[in-house]
Amino acid sequence: MSAFDELIQSRRSAMKFQTDVQISQHELSELFHAAALAPSCYNLQHTHYVAVTKPEEKEKLKQAAGGQHKVVMASAAIVVLGDLDAYKKADQIYGGMRDLGIMSQLDYDLMLDTINGLYESRGAEFQKEEAIRNASLSAMLFMLNAKDKGWDTCPMIGFDPEAVRELLHIPDHLIPVMMITLGKEDTSKQRPRGYRKPVAEFVTFDRFC
Amino acid sequence: MSAFDELIQSRRSAMKFQTDVQISQHELSELFHAAALAPSCYNLQHTHYVAVTKPEEKEKLKQAAGGQHKVVMASAAIVVLGDLDAYKKADQIYGGMRDLGIMSQLDYDLMLDTINGLYESRGAEFQKEEAIRNASLSAMLFMLNAKDKGWDTCPMIGFDPEAVRELLHIPDHLIPVMMITLGKEDTSKQRPRGYRKPVAEFVTFDRFC
Repeated sequence: MSAFDELIQSRRSAMKFQTDVQISQHELSELFHAAALAPSCYNLQHTHYVAVTKPEEKEKLKQAAGGQHKVVMASAAIVVLGDLDAYKKADQIYGGMRDLGIMSQLDYDLMLDTINGLYESRGAEFQKEEAIRNASLSAMLFMLNAKDKGWDTCPMIGFDPEAVRELLHIPDHLIPVMMITLGKEDTSKQRPRGYRKPVAEFVTFDRFC
Repeated sequence: MSAFDELIQSRRSAMKFQTDVQISQHELSELFHAAALAPSCYNLQHTHYVAVTKPEEKEKLKQAAGGQHKVVMASAAIVVLGDLDAYKKADQIYGGMRDLGIMSQLDYDLMLDTINGLYESRGAEFQKEEAIRNASLSAMLFMLNAKDKGWDTCPMIGFDPEAVRELLHIPDHLIPVMMITLGKEDTSKQRPRGYRKPVAEFVTFDRFC
């Protein structure tokens, strides 16, 4: 069993957190720094994170999450956002490489045309799906890395996205994709791991019959 | 640096694959087995994988992916699907635990009511977003695990979802979320890793100003 096998076995969605455990902005920043290594479509890095650690702010976020107590028990409640406009900022991703001569002006222009072509031709629904898809890839890497560094997490979707938007002043181009509560799990009443489907039920080789 | 830090540093989206490298169904199944440990909303396990390894089938898939040569060079082209109807199958996830007495009939009924309430009240758009979100979480864990076991991957979105649906006979309740090509990377012309934004550009503490 590799260290990674042990990591994915030990990562569980935390049901309860130990209260009074704090996480510093520095430690959170280290976790986010690693999450930046997740892949994204054309490296557009659609993901934005808002980390809420102040007790009074977590309390407000709890209200926007159907009163789920986990939000205030956690050391941080992290809202994962996806950028609908990520493709419009490709110049910020590729400009530096062009300026350094790593990428020619021709390749830069071609890259931006390709990116704009993909996102504009597929339209608003695709842009939203891309925000969700790419932010979710980042979120999974974030949660595994958090576990590796001793932090438990729980991904959550049971919140009112518009209430969260208002509370955190989220600009229109960013959409809430999920919330991640993070802390040290209180394992005193841990439930058995949830049932997982056998491979034959969720994998098809070559094609459906 | 932990083993996980090294893993996320070494995982890169593969640009080219060594040809004539095969992966067995057994080895793929082991990778999928591990991916089942990814979290999903209410453990509904929305993700389905189709693994295409036959050269003639990969060739057809390449046509549906804008002729991208990577699809045939790869040992396997894997289509990641999300189940729009995952919430309707909650009985299959929780029924076993009820039958074993791990979950009471009351808790089982409450769980199914809660799940139906969430997915039905939020409607078709949410059901689609959930398929994308949960399949993407699984896909990220799958790609990291593949790297841990010596396989390189590349997540791809540049394919025609309807052409892929027709080719693989994908039933209507499953939607293509991404394609993952998998193999041994040909690193003879590997590009430098793509620029990553600094943390301050994609992380906000507490709220936007």
